[in-house]
Amino acid sequence: MTVFHPSKNPILSGQSFVARLADLEALDRDDPLRALRDAFMLPDGLVYLGGNSLGALPRETPARLHEVAARQWGQDLLRSWSAHDWIGAPQRVGDKIARLIGAGPGEVVVSDSTSVNLFKLLAAACRLRPHRSVILSEPGNFPNDLYVAQGFAGLNEGIGLHRVSADQIEAAIDEHVAVVLLTHVHYKSGAVHDMARITARAHAQGALALWDLSHSAGAVPVNLNAAQADFAVGCGYKYLNGGPGAPAYLFVAQRHQAATVSPITGWLGHARPFDFIDDYSPAPGVARFLAGSHPILGIAALEVGVDLMLRADQQARVDKSRALSELFVALVESRCAGQGLELASPRDPEARGSHVALRHPQAYAVMQALIARGVVGDFRAPDLMRFGFSPLYNRYADSWHAVETLRDVLQTADWDRPEFRQHHAVT
Amino acid sequence: MTVFHPSKNPILSGQSFVARLADLEALDRDDPLRALRDAFMLPDGLVYLGGNSLGALPRETPARLHEVAARQWGQDLLRSWSAHDWIGAPQRVGDKIARLIGAGPGEVVVSDSTSVNLFKLLAAACRLRPHRSVILSEPGNFPNDLYVAQGFAGLNEGIGLHRVSADQIEAAIDEHVAVVLLTHVHYKSGAVHDMARITARAHAQGALALWDLSHSAGAVPVNLNAAQADFAVGCGYKYLNGGPGAPAYLFVAQRHQAATVSPITGWLGHARPFDFIDDYSPAPGVARFLAGSHPILGIAALEVGVDLMLRADQQARVDKSRALSELFVALVESRCAGQGLELASPRDPEARGSHVALRHPQAYAVMQALIARGVVGDFRAPDLMRFGFSPLYNRYADSWHAVETLRDVLQTADWDRPEFRQHHAVT
Repeated sequence: MTVFHPSKNPILSGQSFVARLADLEALDRDDPLRALRDAFMLPDGLVYLGGNSLGALPRETPARLHEVAARQWGQDLLRSWSAHDWIGAPQRVGDKIARLIGAGPGEVVVSDSTSVNLFKLLAAACRLRPHRSVILSEPGNFPNDLYVAQGFAGLNEGIGLHRVSADQIEAAIDEHVAVVLLTHVHYKSGAVHDMARITARAHAQGALALWDLSHSAGAVPVNLNAAQADFAVGCGYKYLNGGPGAPAYLFVAQRHQAATVSPITGWLGHARPFDFIDDYSPAPGVARFLAGSHPILGIAALEVGVDLMLRADQQARVDKSRALSELFVALVESRCAGQGLELASPRDPEARGSHVALRHPQAYAVMQALIARGVVGDFRAPDLMRFGFSPLYNRYADSWHAVETLRDVLQTADWDRPEFRQHHAVT
Repeated sequence: MTVFHPSKNPILSGQSFVARLADLEALDRDDPLRALRDAFMLPDGLVYLGGNSLGALPRETPARLHEVAARQWGQDLLRSWSAHDWIGAPQRVGDKIARLIGAGPGEVVVSDSTSVNLFKLLAAACRLRPHRSVILSEPGNFPNDLYVAQGFAGLNEGIGLHRVSADQIEAAIDEHVAVVLLTHVHYKSGAVHDMARITARAHAQGALALWDLSHSAGAVPVNLNAAQADFAVGCGYKYLNGGPGAPAYLFVAQRHQAATVSPITGWLGHARPFDFIDDYSPAPGVARFLAGSHPILGIAALEVGVDLMLRADQQARVDKSRALSELFVALVESRCAGQGLELASPRDPEARGSHVALRHPQAYAVMQALIARGVVGDFRAPDLMRFGFSPLYNRYADSWHAVETLRDVLQTADWDRPEFRQHHAVT
């Protein structure tokens, strides 16, 4: 079977395709990204579909951490700031991430958390549009982003957060809107916003667009500059495989950099931090959005994940993500019909990110049962199961095994047993 | 020689004391904290006096990082958030740090960077004093803190940063001051502010006090609650030995917690983050000042450093810090007289933190020569050398070797050689 070219991938080619495990294993053997699977350390036999929440561990990461801790920190100590370019790490790794999201060199820095970066960029955006009063988002956007926007609005009299449903966003962008704040791929449903179209509509109304790429970067096509995006943030611990609570990143389009200021004017965002003068003066470029001393261990781990992502051909990567999730949906439809599942993600693979949400009244219990049998996804209250597909380490056979296990759990479930009655959120 | 009790330490007892290397080595042998020195990995022969900038590597840290990366992240993946209490790490390690700074359980969390925490607490403090317009600090305070305060003031019409010299601070606290923002131990001079006295003066005028403990915690006595401090921040990578760019921490006095809000209202500061509801509602207690997903690798490394610090008897720790720096000053006075050095720190050890600053017109070149000979301090423009003394791993003999090397560098320097003409800031 020849599957190297996406149009020849039977899952994506539109031809009628009856999946058999042997065929899927053949697809895995012929996968152009197969070598990258071996670059990750995953427990034997585990079907890990949680990469949309916490990406898997690159095999190289523990050794890199040892190198940075034991040799750089332990032996070279203070001089590592220059000798090992600790000082340049936010820009160096930022420039690498830029290549994954369609940004240019000098437009991205690694910094803080997604929340803190969002706060910085909301402030920067609203200062660029001082006579406008609205931050526009959608209800059900990733709650963190809504919370940060609410908090920011609470500090600034005259600024408010408005939420309208996804299909109303474009119509709601008017001359009062300072900035449109959206998550590119929805954290629950996986629905993808049309970044270029919404950004164009924002610009036509004089507004700005700020995109959260946390559920996109590394898995779906993202091209910030082609879309003329103004600002973006994203996290490092999902598809970028940077580790738990990895540092986040932020993007400021080149054209805005000179006119924007960060509200959190820390010393590493200063033009000359080592002059130790009393007055603030922003660094040129995106570096002005840096604040405190950056987390060297966290950035080191993130860099391993980003470097792996850059080794994958971009088209092969996004094609494989799409094929994996499309296969999963097709298998659920064919193998779990009549079991009370509802697809909570768009059916069209082009409209969907790299995770799939299934609704079930006993979602919590079903997910617990799946995990107990070695299929890891996650649960989102009240009734969703999410399954994420990483192009670097997931296999077509994973989708098969996941759906077969799901089918078995649903067919054999005794809903009266105690473990199926528990129903509370877990992280 | 009996030196276990501080009053018997000849360096601190006030008795006439002529230092000889053999006596100092005897002090090191009898040091009650001696075992802790072995808990750190330092290059053989290096005299490391940079712990006020980047603390040394605890021997256990690389193994702990390996455990967290390879086993927790790599094997247990998502479920580590509960199985290994990743979710509770900011509070768990915060409670440990609390014991080092005179705070109670539930008053400290590990979070973000010092800069970001400072921003959060300035906002919280100013909101508690809405009709007051002044953030009061001193010129030459750690520039980062001034920058963050300037940036915060720039966002809030009617709030300004006023700077008055250290000896004028108390007189300048009036009914316009919302919050007094000071670094407890000055980053350059090492001068210590009287936290209890200044805080009392602030309270008498209805103002609040926010202390930066970055150069204090772990090295000098700090008792936030005895001083009735309102807020504090501090970094994890100096005397706490948490590693380069380690996560920082923040303190909010119990009595203020219910009435304060963070400006950066991220999801992990939410009362029920895993309900994923659209509206923000702050977590009870200091956890409301958490924002984004926290850096698990960084907190793991920090916890090793904090645990080591907690193993040291507190009185032995602060006594040793003081004895080390006092010995250094006394040796400089006796061995380097007439070499153009000026003490830029208070002469009284009680008024000084755990680092000593020496002024010299060729400070940059002298520090480079010291480093080349295995004595590591740092340089601060334009003319200061700093030498930090960590009670956990520095030895009395370190002060001896540092001063003998300094004497030798100064006596043999050829100021016309090229390396003595370089003069630029290094990290």
